[in-house]
Amino acid sequence: MKVFVAEIEVMPRKEILDPQGKAIALGLANLGLEGVQEVRMGKHIQLQLQATDEAEAVQKTEAACRQLLVNAIMEDFTFQLHPQQG
Amino acid sequence: MKVFVAEIEVMPRKEILDPQGKAIALGLANLGLEGVQEVRMGKHIQLQLQATDEAEAVQKTEAACRQLLVNAIMEDFTFQLHPQQG
Repeated sequence: MKVFVAEIEVMPRKEILDPQGKAIALGLANLGLEGVQEVRMGKHIQLQLQATDEAEAVQKTEAACRQLLVNAIMEDFTFQLHPQQG
Repeated sequence: MKVFVAEIEVMPRKEILDPQGKAIALGLANLGLEGVQEVRMGKHIQLQLQATDEAEAVQKTEAACRQLLVNAIMEDFTFQLHPQQG
């Protein structure tokens, strides 16, 4: 068994309003930070998992996203896998 | 003025307990997904911003993180900047 780390990004779909992002954009403008145009906010999840090889790690990560981490109606996800270091 | 996109990751510091991550790990185990060891959950923020050059974009992104997006006591951040495409 090898240990992999999956770095998963879960973001609201483009067609969907993102009130958290809008609030951040407003907050930055109120702080005097100019030039910020669009902000979107999502989740970043680090998953450390055991698998026999990278293919199994990909399959497990996708299963975790589809079954628990991501609401497929409102969110998209991408991930990168790399072997655990050290 | 050029347009840049900053991809910011805000994660709970290593020394700090992450109850959301713990809940995810438990949820995945309950779903029968084996081999998941450690989970940490943070925020992913996409910031689209105008700046004269990359140095100014970096400076603006760091200001946004320190002044609004990140609680430096409990969270760490990293970001990557790239020019807006299209």
